[in-house]
Amino acid sequence: MKLLYPTSLKLDVKSLEGFSTSLHPYDVKVPIPDDLIDAEILVSWTNSAENLSDAAKRMKNLRWIQSLAAGPNDILAAGFPSNVLVTTGSGLHDRTVAEHALGLLLTAARRFDQMREYQLRREWPQHLGGPQPDRPKDRFTTLRDANVLIWGYGNIAKTLAPHLTAWGATVRGVARTAGVRNGVEVYADDKLPELLPQTDALVMILPGSDSTTNVLNKERLALLPAHAWVVNVGRGVSIDEDALADALEQGKLGGAALDVFKTEPLPKESRLWSTPNLLVSPHAAGGRPQDAEGLIAYNLRRFLAGQELKNLV
Amino acid sequence: MKLLYPTSLKLDVKSLEGFSTSLHPYDVKVPIPDDLIDAEILVSWTNSAENLSDAAKRMKNLRWIQSLAAGPNDILAAGFPSNVLVTTGSGLHDRTVAEHALGLLLTAARRFDQMREYQLRREWPQHLGGPQPDRPKDRFTTLRDANVLIWGYGNIAKTLAPHLTAWGATVRGVARTAGVRNGVEVYADDKLPELLPQTDALVMILPGSDSTTNVLNKERLALLPAHAWVVNVGRGVSIDEDALADALEQGKLGGAALDVFKTEPLPKESRLWSTPNLLVSPHAAGGRPQDAEGLIAYNLRRFLAGQELKNLV
Repeated sequence: MKLLYPTSLKLDVKSLEGFSTSLHPYDVKVPIPDDLIDAEILVSWTNSAENLSDAAKRMKNLRWIQSLAAGPNDILAAGFPSNVLVTTGSGLHDRTVAEHALGLLLTAARRFDQMREYQLRREWPQHLGGPQPDRPKDRFTTLRDANVLIWGYGNIAKTLAPHLTAWGATVRGVARTAGVRNGVEVYADDKLPELLPQTDALVMILPGSDSTTNVLNKERLALLPAHAWVVNVGRGVSIDEDALADALEQGKLGGAALDVFKTEPLPKESRLWSTPNLLVSPHAAGGRPQDAEGLIAYNLRRFLAGQELKNLV
Repeated sequence: MKLLYPTSLKLDVKSLEGFSTSLHPYDVKVPIPDDLIDAEILVSWTNSAENLSDAAKRMKNLRWIQSLAAGPNDILAAGFPSNVLVTTGSGLHDRTVAEHALGLLLTAARRFDQMREYQLRREWPQHLGGPQPDRPKDRFTTLRDANVLIWGYGNIAKTLAPHLTAWGATVRGVARTAGVRNGVEVYADDKLPELLPQTDALVMILPGSDSTTNVLNKERLALLPAHAWVVNVGRGVSIDEDALADALEQGKLGGAALDVFKTEPLPKESRLWSTPNLLVSPHAAGGRPQDAEGLIAYNLRRFLAGQELKNLV
């Protein structure tokens, strides 16, 4: 049985040995070579759309695709037969995305963005330095005593939350299923009208789908306090970008730090580039799967044993 | 006995009641009024130099000054008689300074500064987004597996360190006294020649004094790897700024995020404004004492009981 692994990232291939499987590197940006086309297992990472649609047509023996991306969108779009199992790399990006989210939250609280703008003008931003009010109620200036609401409470949120509570933040979550997760109270989205008005920082970590499209809309934005920040490290579709820009231009929101957008790269003509208090991060939160070998080996053993795979789509 | 407390910050004065002391607010920017000039105790915060030098001359009954600042420099410069006890606000700024330091470290790792520059030009910084190498050895891109060296291992460092280790960093310290503090190995500065070459991020939290002046000099900067970042949230005197700027201009250092400078505000003509990969933060890390009432009440009880004061200079 052949397993093809991508050369688009550094993998410790030794960690995949010991199974009755031969391991073969492949280039994710060109068609699969003829001598590998009979492989049963494909590990994917940043494959080109052409590579995938070609593989969907030519890999007649393919039974399982292990993607290392957080979501399966590129695989599902390629047209593989329905009998090919697809598993995602959910979990491989938890730490990197959570770290980025914390960085954006601290950038918002400490206004490192404004400091940079002043520096480029060789100006000292006196309003940000020297004596400051401690935890003013009408601004988001620190994680201490801040109410942080995480919308989309999966593994990334579980990774991020303890870092926020360690600084003194109160963390609550919103997810499809309510309940307590790792000590954090998670609510269903029907509680948003109560939760949003109490929020100093809203962290969005929702996947992209029809059901998450524009869920942060004009009505819900209006429920946030005027000093609240929105951080999005999930998918761009979840925010009504024009409603967000309107709110920021009208001073109805503290700011927004966005790592994801409806169109990426953000088009030159987008109003978001110059919306006040809006920070553009170029889909940089994840993009570097960590400990991928562990997931591949775990699922490979289960695949060979005929057991259910982890992260099955 | 009269205690004067400053109106330059919000204090919960009720937390200071219960002692045989009358409590009087005062304006830190004008001379102490005649009816308060006989006070024995002065709490100071952002007092003007004129207020302090006037108080030094006219407050004949003064026996103790409780500053809320981390260091006593402004009090010592005012010329109070040597029999006046001076205590600092060391400890009141631990969380705020540590939070700022973490924010600067994440800004350095994720290059939020570059993202902002690109945004101002309406350009998508593609090199910072999308697929990235995971933890490359020749760049500081994440706290995970990073070696962070904290030079000046006091209470702020003790507050910061667990937040860094929680992200997977290896933290070591440098201080006058070697030993293990809260699980972190702290070395004397004679070990710097061994420690600096292994450092991905150097966090400076040294107080300002003759003995800390220019301790990060050309020779020690040369021991840091070319990808290392320097973060300074202590005092500006501890870095030879020209040697730092030279190293950055010559590409011998990854970057520097400085919250403190030899001259503040940084003069318009300073080369640091435009030194590559140098971030200017306007002495913004602290500046908001937290839980000051606790320290004042603690020391007030000890003062009235004739016991040794905490944070005595």
